[in-house]
Amino acid sequence: MSAIKINDSEASLQSIETSAGEITFAIMQTNFWVGDIAGNVKKMSALAMDAKNKGADIVVFPELSLIGYPPEDLLLRPTLSERVKFAMDELAKVEGIVIILGYPHIDQHGTFNSVAILQGGSQKGFYHKQCLPNYGIFDERRYFDEGRNQVLFDYKGATIGLLICEDIWHDAPIHALKKEGADLVIVINASPFEVGKQQKRKELLTRQAKTHNLPIIYANTVGAQDDIVFDGGSLIMQADGCIAHEGARFLNQLIMAKFNPINRTFDKQHKAPLVLSEESEIYQALVVGLRDYVNRSGFKGVIIGLSGGIDSALTLCLAVDALGADKVYAVMMPYEFTSNMSLEDAAAQAARLNVSYTVCPIHDAVEGMRATLAPLFANSTPDSTEENLQARARGNILMALSNKFGHMVVSTGNKSENAVGYATLYGDMVGGFDMLKDIYKTDVYRLANYRNRLEDNPVIPERVITRAPSAELRPDQKDQDSLPDYETLDAILRMYIDDDLGYKAICAAGFEPALVEKVLRMVDNAEHKRRQGAIGTKISKKSFGRERRYPLVNGWSITGSF
Amino acid sequence: MSAIKINDSEASLQSIETSAGEITFAIMQTNFWVGDIAGNVKKMSALAMDAKNKGADIVVFPELSLIGYPPEDLLLRPTLSERVKFAMDELAKVEGIVIILGYPHIDQHGTFNSVAILQGGSQKGFYHKQCLPNYGIFDERRYFDEGRNQVLFDYKGATIGLLICEDIWHDAPIHALKKEGADLVIVINASPFEVGKQQKRKELLTRQAKTHNLPIIYANTVGAQDDIVFDGGSLIMQADGCIAHEGARFLNQLIMAKFNPINRTFDKQHKAPLVLSEESEIYQALVVGLRDYVNRSGFKGVIIGLSGGIDSALTLCLAVDALGADKVYAVMMPYEFTSNMSLEDAAAQAARLNVSYTVCPIHDAVEGMRATLAPLFANSTPDSTEENLQARARGNILMALSNKFGHMVVSTGNKSENAVGYATLYGDMVGGFDMLKDIYKTDVYRLANYRNRLEDNPVIPERVITRAPSAELRPDQKDQDSLPDYETLDAILRMYIDDDLGYKAICAAGFEPALVEKVLRMVDNAEHKRRQGAIGTKISKKSFGRERRYPLVNGWSITGSF
Repeated sequence: MSAIKINDSEASLQSIETSAGEITFAIMQTNFWVGDIAGNVKKMSALAMDAKNKGADIVVFPELSLIGYPPEDLLLRPTLSERVKFAMDELAKVEGIVIILGYPHIDQHGTFNSVAILQGGSQKGFYHKQCLPNYGIFDERRYFDEGRNQVLFDYKGATIGLLICEDIWHDAPIHALKKEGADLVIVINASPFEVGKQQKRKELLTRQAKTHNLPIIYANTVGAQDDIVFDGGSLIMQADGCIAHEGARFLNQLIMAKFNPINRTFDKQHKAPLVLSEESEIYQALVVGLRDYVNRSGFKGVIIGLSGGIDSALTLCLAVDALGADKVYAVMMPYEFTSNMSLEDAAAQAARLNVSYTVCPIHDAVEGMRATLAPLFANSTPDSTEENLQARARGNILMALSNKFGHMVVSTGNKSENAVGYATLYGDMVGGFDMLKDIYKTDVYRLANYRNRLEDNPVIPERVITRAPSAELRPDQKDQDSLPDYETLDAILRMYIDDDLGYKAICAAGFEPALVEKVLRMVDNAEHKRRQGAIGTKISKKSFGRERRYPLVNGWSITGSF
Repeated sequence: MSAIKINDSEASLQSIETSAGEITFAIMQTNFWVGDIAGNVKKMSALAMDAKNKGADIVVFPELSLIGYPPEDLLLRPTLSERVKFAMDELAKVEGIVIILGYPHIDQHGTFNSVAILQGGSQKGFYHKQCLPNYGIFDERRYFDEGRNQVLFDYKGATIGLLICEDIWHDAPIHALKKEGADLVIVINASPFEVGKQQKRKELLTRQAKTHNLPIIYANTVGAQDDIVFDGGSLIMQADGCIAHEGARFLNQLIMAKFNPINRTFDKQHKAPLVLSEESEIYQALVVGLRDYVNRSGFKGVIIGLSGGIDSALTLCLAVDALGADKVYAVMMPYEFTSNMSLEDAAAQAARLNVSYTVCPIHDAVEGMRATLAPLFANSTPDSTEENLQARARGNILMALSNKFGHMVVSTGNKSENAVGYATLYGDMVGGFDMLKDIYKTDVYRLANYRNRLEDNPVIPERVITRAPSAELRPDQKDQDSLPDYETLDAILRMYIDDDLGYKAICAAGFEPALVEKVLRMVDNAEHKRRQGAIGTKISKKSFGRERRYPLVNGWSITGSF
């Protein structure tokens, strides 16, 4: 094995002889758990040994693989520095292979999001991320200081430059590496999934490779942390912008690639472009999001309230695909307004997916609450309060079952409902995870149809997809009694939420001003509900939660000029 | 009135003649509403006119007074730039006085947290904040770019430098102003309240004034935004570090001060130091926090579930002090385990505070839920599930009353309970605002005793303070059956949460390791509950919510070495 020579603007050059030759890289596209430093080190040690045994010279782990991404305020724990030191010493014990990994670096200059080069029992060098994202879901400037220096190392005749995630989305860092004589750039990433993100990554990397005539190894992480999913899709790119290899999406994978330092090319050639349909990538993201959250939370399984409608039907499919039918418990909670169709369809869904299914009529629970409230409501007329009683009785039952049997409640509210507040706080909003939180209602239909196409026998009864959506909280209620049709609603919501457009711009797109105002007002007024809602997997470019931070009470005028 | 001369490294000097003389400042310590630009402009125009009529040359408004603080993602709205321009044009119409105010500045160089100087119908200059806080509750780097230049202006023979909030906590910006020849520094602020913060501000300003031999005007805002309270206490400081004037705490106030440019001193002399007791400042912060939140949310009043215990007793006092007794509705919801003592004391509290009081026994509601669940619970033994049913029945009743009559539910969970998860999600945690969210149980007692000392006839019955705390969810239950005594618990929690200390450090402080581990584990395991809890006013140096951002599921080892 060759020694490495570190070359940065701070450290003096280490003149260790290196011999030229083909370099075998092992890219470890792997799921690391946030905070579990000991577990992550154990996993990395084993994977590094495995890579070594497979003939790799250099093994590459993703951004912050030591602590997982995003670690949030765990980065402020006072013992972090000591833990990291201990962990890096442990990892350095793996001999016979160069280990490149992401870790939080703490020294007298600050705290950095860094990549380390370990070899032969010690740390040979490190690079600090220069571009720290602090927008959207990212808060890196809360924790990290900016790196100021390029770092390159020589290995078997190749000069290899290091970058971390956001760095490659800017031109300066790679440009500087090129100027310093890089033959190859390794970028380690924790790049979260969004619809269409992989295509953007490919375009970016093609542009950066071609512009700077540099081959690039782009190693991404996989798995979910709370509301964020990492979708893998690591890329090995030739200097001409052609993809040499693309990692699987959403799966752990070891990618082996040989690099020839003489002609600066990788041996691999990409066979066929790996393009997932939008429905497919969203569906997989949701599956991974739920699976990792439930498994890491320690719950034994999940419990889902079925209504006979499409949201709970799709949620049930996703849960079964994520966890297996034996970990999914369905309960139908009918009341006077529940139709026979709903009862039949809920039972059919559960049967087709082979999950535990219970019917629990809520009559007694609702009547008990009505009796309790009767003296206080004596002089009032029925309104949405009485509808909420039903939703909250159902929420209480789900929570009681969760408390008693140890299954996490998974709620089924979609993004359209979350947006306009068409949901009952502490009612249908109860749960540890909201499966469809970032899925607009029109996309719920797309995903349901997608899932049905995957098997000869559709798992969601056709009638669930074709019936008019209804909360069934009063006789003959339909969602469209109080909301515009979902095509229109979602179009307005996408402009307001995902595209951050305002009232005037949305009206200018051809929507009726009174309707636009009504919808925008509903969105703003539901902020307090969303703030108390469960988390759910982000799949859009602007999800509710840490990505969209609005004041709860504010005086912003929707239609005003200021 | 004198013209002003702007002097910064970008703009060329404007050579407008200025005549020397005494300068009268009007510091407007005022409550501005986040997002309500039109309302804020109207308020500022009126206040500026008022200041002018009182003889002021220069009126100073706090940081981001145009849009309120913190505006969060409203700063990303695409119409913001247009709205700000419109608003600034409107404000510039006020003639005869120099207006200094905080506003978000958007131009081709970026978005800045800025202070503007308006005079004679136009904007004469601006300064961009250089030090952007991005820790604790602050996310300024999410929105703002860093300013790079000092800005000073000449007025009546004085050279006045401008700074914004965080700038003054660092040495470089004021040092640079001194070097550029400043005679006086104006710092505009939106500095949030924390216990003891005003003392820290005084020490800081005294140090900065003395070190640089510079008088300082420190203008702070007041009022609450969601979970943050601004406590005013604006300061006018002589160059020798003596306080010339201190603004009232927690109140709107106009502070007039004359500055003599010849000897660089203010006319005022501080009479007696204004020192609030810790209990007094916390109590006032909680009152302001609730008042502004409820009033701005549009609710007609608040509804509070009384238990006969001290948390709800103190919450009731705070609500009455914040909103007036006529806007506060108390409801006692007894069950089989509710003691007569609790019933008597709840009634007594309501009577002493003269609020509407209703008793709503929850027997029917709980029995209805039990009947509904009976078939599903047939083979199980009673556990905390059954206790949660009671708490959730109460939560449902409060929400039903809120839905029906339009009062916001104010919950009463304290910081100790929130920390260890000693609360029922969707039960006693329901509500729009959690009054005691940042108040440890031992401080609940301190505040209750403090409030009782304010009047000859204590508003909280003595027995409420002296009885052993109990959730009364099963016979003879006491909090201390499942928790350590609150003195011990709170001491551990303060170290873990407020001081960010770890397991070893807390053990080293003399606490029993098994107990420390148990408490820390409870805190970590309750993260999912806190995430769905209501907001509440921050008073500590580390409050739950945006100030403490932890992953929901994480593998951090409490006792491990890594």
